[in-house]
Amino acid sequence: MYKALPSIGLLGGGQLGRMLLQAAVDLDLQIACLDPDAEASCHQLTPNFQQGSFQDYETVYQFGQKYDVISIEIEHVNIEVLKQLESEGKKVYPQPHILQMIQDKRLQKQFFKDHGFPTADFVLTDNQASLSQHIDFLPAFHKLGKGGYDGKGVQYIADAASVTKGFDAPGLLEKAVDFEKELAVIVARNPQGETAVFPAVEMVFHPEQNLVEFLFSPAEITTTIAKQAEKIAVDLINTLELVGVLAVEMFLTKDGQVLINEIAPRPHNSGHQTIRGNESSQYEQHLRAITGLPLGSTKSFGFSGMLNLLGAEGFTGPAKYEGLADILAIPGVFPFLYGKKITKPFRKMGHITILGDSKGAIIEKANQVKNLIRVIS
Amino acid sequence: MYKALPSIGLLGGGQLGRMLLQAAVDLDLQIACLDPDAEASCHQLTPNFQQGSFQDYETVYQFGQKYDVISIEIEHVNIEVLKQLESEGKKVYPQPHILQMIQDKRLQKQFFKDHGFPTADFVLTDNQASLSQHIDFLPAFHKLGKGGYDGKGVQYIADAASVTKGFDAPGLLEKAVDFEKELAVIVARNPQGETAVFPAVEMVFHPEQNLVEFLFSPAEITTTIAKQAEKIAVDLINTLELVGVLAVEMFLTKDGQVLINEIAPRPHNSGHQTIRGNESSQYEQHLRAITGLPLGSTKSFGFSGMLNLLGAEGFTGPAKYEGLADILAIPGVFPFLYGKKITKPFRKMGHITILGDSKGAIIEKANQVKNLIRVIS
Repeated sequence: MYKALPSIGLLGGGQLGRMLLQAAVDLDLQIACLDPDAEASCHQLTPNFQQGSFQDYETVYQFGQKYDVISIEIEHVNIEVLKQLESEGKKVYPQPHILQMIQDKRLQKQFFKDHGFPTADFVLTDNQASLSQHIDFLPAFHKLGKGGYDGKGVQYIADAASVTKGFDAPGLLEKAVDFEKELAVIVARNPQGETAVFPAVEMVFHPEQNLVEFLFSPAEITTTIAKQAEKIAVDLINTLELVGVLAVEMFLTKDGQVLINEIAPRPHNSGHQTIRGNESSQYEQHLRAITGLPLGSTKSFGFSGMLNLLGAEGFTGPAKYEGLADILAIPGVFPFLYGKKITKPFRKMGHITILGDSKGAIIEKANQVKNLIRVIS
Repeated sequence: MYKALPSIGLLGGGQLGRMLLQAAVDLDLQIACLDPDAEASCHQLTPNFQQGSFQDYETVYQFGQKYDVISIEIEHVNIEVLKQLESEGKKVYPQPHILQMIQDKRLQKQFFKDHGFPTADFVLTDNQASLSQHIDFLPAFHKLGKGGYDGKGVQYIADAASVTKGFDAPGLLEKAVDFEKELAVIVARNPQGETAVFPAVEMVFHPEQNLVEFLFSPAEITTTIAKQAEKIAVDLINTLELVGVLAVEMFLTKDGQVLINEIAPRPHNSGHQTIRGNESSQYEQHLRAITGLPLGSTKSFGFSGMLNLLGAEGFTGPAKYEGLADILAIPGVFPFLYGKKITKPFRKMGHITILGDSKGAIIEKANQVKNLIRVIS
């Protein structure tokens, strides 16, 4: 029988929130957003946009009172208040204790290890000085426990001479993995325990900025590896009992192992292309999951690709999209602009989804696109 | 070089406007809506929703001053004011003189005839009494010249005895066509004269309400017929020099002719399934066309179907969607709810897009969906 759809209060109003709001129109789901930036990507897309801090206990508590389900589009939110809301019977998805674990890369890694999930070897470090105790563990990546975001909070430590590059805060040293590819799998789970997994995608990172620069779906890997990567994601979300979508970034090592790198308990950059590339998008899937609806089909329509659209170096100010009409003239090229007023170097201003008949066709279009579009001011 | 995207003022804020607004998010296009209903489908989707009449000269004139491009999502708007805005240099798409012609089915039919487009034979009628002069033309459909909408304004006249069922206003009598299928083609054209056509779809009407009830894409017709239907649509939009999308409803007669039935200069019920079924949707295409951008790829991802979701008989009041979760459990079934607060019998409350591997699979899912969902109050 009919059950009214719950209202959603979302912490964060950035681009992920924007695409959640856009997807919510289909089912007429009501979403409110809380974001400190009055001009956040979501601010014009819901009459219930509230300017405020998602880290402030009282602000989040009052905001959370108003909606049936509380969710997030960014991890760095106040966990204590989410736990309080949950204890008062509010549905908070992803669940606060999982969010808390994922917020801290040290706890995250320990969780993988404790539950037998494959991940690169690591040691925990307390501060910069403690790196010197692990010279024999180098070369490795030093990762900040808390607060890293979009490539920040990760530092490569080649040898003893470079330990001073490490973070002077709790973190971990992770063995540099000799990988062939980086993969990502997005999986969803609803409160009934139903899961649905998107096909594994393949990522190419920008060497300097460490942001996903280019992505292909489906990943060019064997069926065995694909199944293995997808099984890890499903096992992980089931072990966590997480409600919502979970993005699992992985390494495929040169000797054929799949290792978990990091996870994010929300729609993720590595799933943008699901909007045109798959029957359901990761955004719709997250909404279905957190509102307790059956999950959607994750089937790919074919090959897809995704390019991030970053602010060009040397420009800070009101954003302009040079070459936008030119890329729109290429068949199968679909820009998604995030509605951010101000561009700055390497700021994520949008992304571009590319559809094509083959991986080669997508790479060709991606190269055309890269040469045509630029976010300037 | 960069050219700022124009702002859009849309007359009408119903479901077609809603899907235009949703599509506009991708390119961060700013759309304002004017609709007499304060709770129209669009009212929560843009901060620039204005309650007001799109038939009132002064209201539309003031509204139109504020935006770069004026467009419509309903034909029954004030034409004189659109002509005035156009004469003052405002971009008005579709162009008012085309809208005026299409508003009147008599002018529409005459246009097809004058330009050699295939259409069923007809005679113009001035009032109900004049029907008696055309007894030898029966059986035929009597169509009201102006003001028909969603199946209203069309009456079947079998014989002399039933001429009293005709409309007592200017109209036309159209020979009943012995058709095999009803087809629809959506085509777009931008101000540069570029056109793009969606594959022909096949419609099944509800016998009583005369609303599209069920639609398949692509139509199950020969390549020759498909090309013929698509060519008619392209020739028509080029002859009209219309900017925007044009929906062309056609009959495929039992002897293999393709005849134009009616046209609509806007996104159309027969193109809803392009949202998941094709690379670009008709909504995105309309936005690209009226803002002067290159048109998108119209390629189908495969088979798709579309069912209208109408208010159930016997229910008037706040809408509830019985069986919504049940249909969401069927893979490839995607409901689109229009956010209308009040349901009434046969009101268009939403639609359901169905994806599947074959026409048979889609029909099977459509039948499941029909038996599961009901809009009640």
